[in-house]
Amino acid sequence: MTRISLGLIGLGTVGQGLVKLISSRRDSIRVQFGVDIQVKALCDLRPVPALLKAVPAARFTKDFKSILSDPGIDVVVELIGGLHPAFEIIRGALSSGKNVVTANKAVISHHGKELFALAQKTSKSVYFESAVLAGVPIIKTLVEGVAGNRYNAIYGIVNGTCNYILSEMQTSKMSFEDAVRLAQKKGYAESDPTLDISGGDSAHKLAILVSLAMGKTLKVKDIHAEGITQISQEDLVYAEEMGLSVKLLGIAKKKGDGVEARVHPTLISRRHPLAAVNGVYNAVLMEADALGDVLLVGQGAGEMAAASGVLSDVINLGVATRQGGATWIGNDPREIEKLRLLPMSDIQTEFYIRLMVVDRPGVLSKITGILGKKGVSIASVSQKAVSKNAAVPLVMLTHTAKESSIRAALAEIRRMRDVKAPPVTIRVEEL
Amino acid sequence: MTRISLGLIGLGTVGQGLVKLISSRRDSIRVQFGVDIQVKALCDLRPVPALLKAVPAARFTKDFKSILSDPGIDVVVELIGGLHPAFEIIRGALSSGKNVVTANKAVISHHGKELFALAQKTSKSVYFESAVLAGVPIIKTLVEGVAGNRYNAIYGIVNGTCNYILSEMQTSKMSFEDAVRLAQKKGYAESDPTLDISGGDSAHKLAILVSLAMGKTLKVKDIHAEGITQISQEDLVYAEEMGLSVKLLGIAKKKGDGVEARVHPTLISRRHPLAAVNGVYNAVLMEADALGDVLLVGQGAGEMAAASGVLSDVINLGVATRQGGATWIGNDPREIEKLRLLPMSDIQTEFYIRLMVVDRPGVLSKITGILGKKGVSIASVSQKAVSKNAAVPLVMLTHTAKESSIRAALAEIRRMRDVKAPPVTIRVEEL
Repeated sequence: MTRISLGLIGLGTVGQGLVKLISSRRDSIRVQFGVDIQVKALCDLRPVPALLKAVPAARFTKDFKSILSDPGIDVVVELIGGLHPAFEIIRGALSSGKNVVTANKAVISHHGKELFALAQKTSKSVYFESAVLAGVPIIKTLVEGVAGNRYNAIYGIVNGTCNYILSEMQTSKMSFEDAVRLAQKKGYAESDPTLDISGGDSAHKLAILVSLAMGKTLKVKDIHAEGITQISQEDLVYAEEMGLSVKLLGIAKKKGDGVEARVHPTLISRRHPLAAVNGVYNAVLMEADALGDVLLVGQGAGEMAAASGVLSDVINLGVATRQGGATWIGNDPREIEKLRLLPMSDIQTEFYIRLMVVDRPGVLSKITGILGKKGVSIASVSQKAVSKNAAVPLVMLTHTAKESSIRAALAEIRRMRDVKAPPVTIRVEEL
Repeated sequence: MTRISLGLIGLGTVGQGLVKLISSRRDSIRVQFGVDIQVKALCDLRPVPALLKAVPAARFTKDFKSILSDPGIDVVVELIGGLHPAFEIIRGALSSGKNVVTANKAVISHHGKELFALAQKTSKSVYFESAVLAGVPIIKTLVEGVAGNRYNAIYGIVNGTCNYILSEMQTSKMSFEDAVRLAQKKGYAESDPTLDISGGDSAHKLAILVSLAMGKTLKVKDIHAEGITQISQEDLVYAEEMGLSVKLLGIAKKKGDGVEARVHPTLISRRHPLAAVNGVYNAVLMEADALGDVLLVGQGAGEMAAASGVLSDVINLGVATRQGGATWIGNDPREIEKLRLLPMSDIQTEFYIRLMVVDRPGVLSKITGILGKKGVSIASVSQKAVSKNAAVPLVMLTHTAKESSIRAALAEIRRMRDVKAPPVTIRVEEL
């Protein structure tokens, strides 16, 4: 039996879920894994009486430093989120010879490399399963489950808020604004949903996935991130007519000695399993070179889903400790291929383009002419209404084209007198 | 650096794939995982010259005993399949103090318990990721990835042959016989496909999943298994009209102190992600009590997919060895809940029923009367054609009903003069 003495910092919903899980499962975890999890200390700005009742042997403190300096604690669980003082807590815990479990995507995406190096120096580990897809074991799958494969590409629906909003817009024909309000009402979106709907949250998670899957450490700010605020009901309807569904995807793709890393709304075939991942469900599709496509789907948000991942980490840490307990292999991502981040302007994808144009002879010919001149070839085009006066939607799908060519062509098209609104573009991926 | 000296027994397609992977990736695996995999010996009834060229340091032998007794070999990879002598090889390897990696579903489902106990006695491990879903890491996910959860249910598309056949029948409107022939032509079905299409292969895999997920060791023969030979194009068309799709599922569900375990064609909503798992893809849906639904999808068959799983096992074993190397936690499935296998007659599901009936007044009333008397209530009914003479299809969906009640009602209905063919039934699951 291995005894894990745990200091929990951060008593929000995930921390409370974790304490609930531990207190109700401690006995069965002892039997099943030979690991006895004791909560020794709870830390937050104010106590949560119900928790102290659930684990009466635990002491409460407002001072996280007292946890880091407590020789009786061997695992620190950091669940306060954000960069500071979470980073200092994790660094301090490792320096004090303690293992760490965290669900903190900000710290891992920004400071993972440094913290992992420290973990190796001190022969301790940082487990962070719940930093991406909550407790759905994507980290373990990437690092251990598909070990020995190289990943050619990763496609992730990694933000539950956006997926919920887009799913509601597509199934309930809701406007973007109504879907955001509904998500807020259901607790799936923050009162300020900016970080989620801007794609920023997804970029953090993509950075973590790329570092593990491709051994490439990216700065979050270097990842091209577009959110879902430009998606309109109108475009969803046209996409559906074409057999396509829109998802906010985090995409990483190897191309020669480079890697693309980008977050943006993406049209995919409605028949692909990723298109069936709806609501608050998240998913990551891995293109592994020996195994082929692997898809992992589950709830990427929610108190218990995240707490479950933290508990799994604590158990796996306990098992590893029992078996010798060197640094976890997930803290040693090696850059095998020396990939460089490809500039967004060089990315090649297919594009959905919607223009609002005056329905006049010669307009279509002029538009396709501009696209052709820039090397963009059209796969399909359809005008969605007929009107002699008002502008009508003109919807096109392109063949694979370079981002910079599309941008140049659309800038020129935008200047046409007969084009009445900024062009709407959504990238298309064939999965 | 941990050195793994490997003896490979079984040089079929998976064995050949493994040697290819090891010889091309040995250097990057050293860098990435600190594990150096050396193939020391190859064993089969006849040599494969290309393999001996790929790993020139390896010796070839026809005698597996010489591998078990070779003190220079510390991991035996068993890839000959079947029960004997695979079982004796694995037992012998463990007894000689060697770790084992196998892809053998027959041995693990029939003798897993005994072999795992032996592994614990000798402080060695048996890894078997590729026994279910080839290299898709379902074993690791069940045991480690979602550690600390209890599984309320498991639904698996675990046979690629059947899923390919059913997918072709549904998308290309092919007959069962034509789909089998196409699967054979493409190498997805054996020349004698019985074990696959009878559901027997799926029952083996379900037994392994249940032992890991629920700690319950089942005899394969005690698992109710129906194959896909009764599925006709006609029923697929009616199912599609009802928004349903048919999959051969292995299902395990906890009910109180019992567990259901069964393999049969199952109608599920076309909107569920499992319905989008087509062709040779396989998938397992886990209902975990804290984390919620988790779905893992990937290629469940194929030389490289299985070899990839074996390689992952070897690497993970190498990492574990470096870190201390006690018996792998997956060899210690504990029966926490003392579940009993529920008899099939007590199972409750919804049913799709197709009867061929003479279109005469009073027939429907008599049929629904019999069903009602047995406690089966009807959710929907539709007659698919009108004919005064020939029999016409009558398609019904029931509400949840007990298996034994359905069977009793159908036996009575079958005896009616106006019912012209044995009733077709397919169970329906709401996922």
